[in-house]
Amino acid sequence: MNEKTLDSAAAGGPAAELVTAGLLVIGDEILSGRTKDKNIGYIAEYLTALGIDLEEVRVVPDVEAEIVAALNALRHRYTYVFTTGGIGPTHDDITADAVAKAFGVPLDVDPRAVDLIAERVGRDGLNAARLRMARIPRGADLVDNPVSKAPGFWIGNVIVMAGIPTVMQAMLDSVAPKLATGVKLSSETVRANLREGDIGTELGQVAKQHPDVMIGSYPFTDEAGHPNTNLVVRGRDPHKLAAAKAAVEAMLVAVRATLATPRE
Amino acid sequence: MNEKTLDSAAAGGPAAELVTAGLLVIGDEILSGRTKDKNIGYIAEYLTALGIDLEEVRVVPDVEAEIVAALNALRHRYTYVFTTGGIGPTHDDITADAVAKAFGVPLDVDPRAVDLIAERVGRDGLNAARLRMARIPRGADLVDNPVSKAPGFWIGNVIVMAGIPTVMQAMLDSVAPKLATGVKLSSETVRANLREGDIGTELGQVAKQHPDVMIGSYPFTDEAGHPNTNLVVRGRDPHKLAAAKAAVEAMLVAVRATLATPRE
Repeated sequence: MNEKTLDSAAAGGPAAELVTAGLLVIGDEILSGRTKDKNIGYIAEYLTALGIDLEEVRVVPDVEAEIVAALNALRHRYTYVFTTGGIGPTHDDITADAVAKAFGVPLDVDPRAVDLIAERVGRDGLNAARLRMARIPRGADLVDNPVSKAPGFWIGNVIVMAGIPTVMQAMLDSVAPKLATGVKLSSETVRANLREGDIGTELGQVAKQHPDVMIGSYPFTDEAGHPNTNLVVRGRDPHKLAAAKAAVEAMLVAVRATLATPRE
Repeated sequence: MNEKTLDSAAAGGPAAELVTAGLLVIGDEILSGRTKDKNIGYIAEYLTALGIDLEEVRVVPDVEAEIVAALNALRHRYTYVFTTGGIGPTHDDITADAVAKAFGVPLDVDPRAVDLIAERVGRDGLNAARLRMARIPRGADLVDNPVSKAPGFWIGNVIVMAGIPTVMQAMLDSVAPKLATGVKLSSETVRANLREGDIGTELGQVAKQHPDVMIGSYPFTDEAGHPNTNLVVRGRDPHKLAAAKAAVEAMLVAVRATLATPRE
């Protein structure tokens, strides 16, 4: 179940408390497997902790039309869109061009960005490649980059960040205090000590009886090498969350009792 | 640059040699950050090695309408679509339902899948939850799961796999011999020993002069703690690849000479 399907009562307040996000990962190197993405999981966890629900991720190549299309699909749908990658100084860094195109605004060399980059490389180091990193879509705010200076930017509901994880993480810290956030989704994990296939039907019944929480089932191999299952209950209302967790625990006790009874 | 923009001559033969793929990752747990995806990078590298170009990835929640929409967007666009996740025995495993809906076919309990699951849990263990895993869209072929038996499936150009990495990897091995594959994309990496911002403009010129290869630039911090850059040249024609690599190396020599000259 998706957060969107929760009614506002379950969310603990008005619907405006639901803040959503999409993530657009940009780069041929992720799609070729040369670089293993480390940003999706980090951003997912970070936004969840803030009370922002990441609802969709897309990974697209360094192709302007693909970036523009994905950006337009996501930005009209979610409260925020975060992008990673493609804001460096080389010819394959075309994210700023694509964002400017999506918003229909000019892409100018921004004196604020030039000053920041000069802090790192000096005025002498401001060659054409580095000035490329200072091109910011008109009307955007800069996103501070305490790691390597060249800034990200924020235009409309789109926040453009670097692809290098340390830089991306610093940029996310820079924007986090300015983001609207919703009521945090709390979660409780219950270890089943049963195989997923032993509890699937009963768990589905519990899920149906507790429509205002989300219940996920995640099989894993435990330390004894046995197939085991973690059941994760998530919700915004602490009472409903506690009730659903208790129902899951009661279900597990009942299933264990059944399995302990020899079959006829 | 994207493989699609390479002309067929660069690809070393007719356009049919270009085989593409989209990947659909299904699961709330990836979007909440609870589970860190390990499949995207694995599949990207695996397909690249086979000569299949992964062109797009989407991550969507356990919501049928979202899965159906993403599946339909991807399957009409790429040679293959691979999916991961959502084929277990619990209520939140709805991938098979969504795929059947996307193809407009019934979702029946498949005797072939029942037999496979029974191999693992015995006929006595075939409860309603496990039979859920035997529901296969009509007309699909099964994808062998040597790890835990419950099969994936292949319908049209869509290959549905488990989300658990070990199971997904085994399923990928099962289908790989049956996939059409293109001419492999070869790549050469040149370590620049220069900062990305020192070579961006010159590299862009090399890229323009070698339109039939893709040139990517990937900054990293080297073992001495200095900002450094890997330049990756990729292409299907070995002669064009070698020529572009040589041009990159010549460019680096030229830039290093310029930087060694004191500024006036």
